[in-house]
Amino acid sequence: MKYVCLIFSFEKFLRSYLFFAFLHNVFIILRKKIMRKLLNSELDRKSVTEFKQSEKTPIVIVLDNIRSQHNVGSVFRTSDAFLIEKIYLCGITSCPPNKEIHKTALGSTDTVAWEYAENTEILVQNLKQNGYKIYSIEQTENSIFLSNFTPKLDEKYALVFGNEVKGVSQEVINISDGVIEIPQIGTKHSLNISVSVGVVIWDFFAKM
Amino acid sequence: MKYVCLIFSFEKFLRSYLFFAFLHNVFIILRKKIMRKLLNSELDRKSVTEFKQSEKTPIVIVLDNIRSQHNVGSVFRTSDAFLIEKIYLCGITSCPPNKEIHKTALGSTDTVAWEYAENTEILVQNLKQNGYKIYSIEQTENSIFLSNFTPKLDEKYALVFGNEVKGVSQEVINISDGVIEIPQIGTKHSLNISVSVGVVIWDFFAKM
Repeated sequence: MKYVCLIFSFEKFLRSYLFFAFLHNVFIILRKKIMRKLLNSELDRKSVTEFKQSEKTPIVIVLDNIRSQHNVGSVFRTSDAFLIEKIYLCGITSCPPNKEIHKTALGSTDTVAWEYAENTEILVQNLKQNGYKIYSIEQTENSIFLSNFTPKLDEKYALVFGNEVKGVSQEVINISDGVIEIPQIGTKHSLNISVSVGVVIWDFFAKM
Repeated sequence: MKYVCLIFSFEKFLRSYLFFAFLHNVFIILRKKIMRKLLNSELDRKSVTEFKQSEKTPIVIVLDNIRSQHNVGSVFRTSDAFLIEKIYLCGITSCPPNKEIHKTALGSTDTVAWEYAENTEILVQNLKQNGYKIYSIEQTENSIFLSNFTPKLDEKYALVFGNEVKGVSQEVINISDGVIEIPQIGTKHSLNISVSVGVVIWDFFAKM
């Protein structure tokens, strides 16, 4: 009788074990499969105050005579996402507050620091004197492909993006430390300016 | 007299040598420094026919109910630059020919292949059956950070980008092979859709 009892309780134990092991596996598979969309409140984003106080990505963006306010707003939004130090709006580039900028910036003009500079060359010279490495994003002789460029962790970078039609001026390129080119293999000669800014900031951010 | 002549001609030779060596070095330094902007004709871009005949990057873009025609045009321009296989315009997403799309696409609607699909879920199921790996670009539980994702060289990818406000629908996410998230550390919960497309396509293109 004693042995019968033992066998029974062992069988019970085995059944329970197998049942829970099965449940556990189902749970693991489901956890992997479930890709529930996160609520905005679950994204753990910074508040404006937290943003202002955070240590920034050591990059400033220089917009050299950008015509489209839509593009300027988009650059603000991208700069917010990657904690960019500052945006310099030069020449004809519009500044906030501006209705068109607001449409694409969606409030990021309140977080990202910015400054207007009339003359891009003077600004770039000043940034150089303040220790920034100046890289223009253009297609020139002796440019470096973005895919081959490795940012140094102890450097500060100023990245210059130029006008939608004319690009960065030759004068600004001449005083740059180098030119970074986004390699392209299609029919068009360049990307949209807000896309270029996104691609370059992401590439720097991911490599840093 | 013979020795004096020899010394003289040696001195002459030495002077000439030093002069030309100096010139050569100046030339090398200048070549490195000169970052002359390239003319559009020097960019060696493809013609429309060459584009059509080229082997494409094995990526298709699925636009799931995109509201802004400006964004759609920009996606065309980016897809042209990186030789994307095809763009699927789903649900309420506008199709070419369209004045607003043209403003940002700048003719790339003539190069990049596209197709309209009313229902994103049915399209995604079809793409899956045709051997595409489906990745939605979203912020979900169990998403993979773009920086940690390595595309395989022998796979074909379908990348799904969602509506400006609602994102990719949960139904489409549920039938995806995975979710890729662009890590962001600012205050806003997402990037502009055309910037997201640029960042993800560039990241895949650079890694491939």
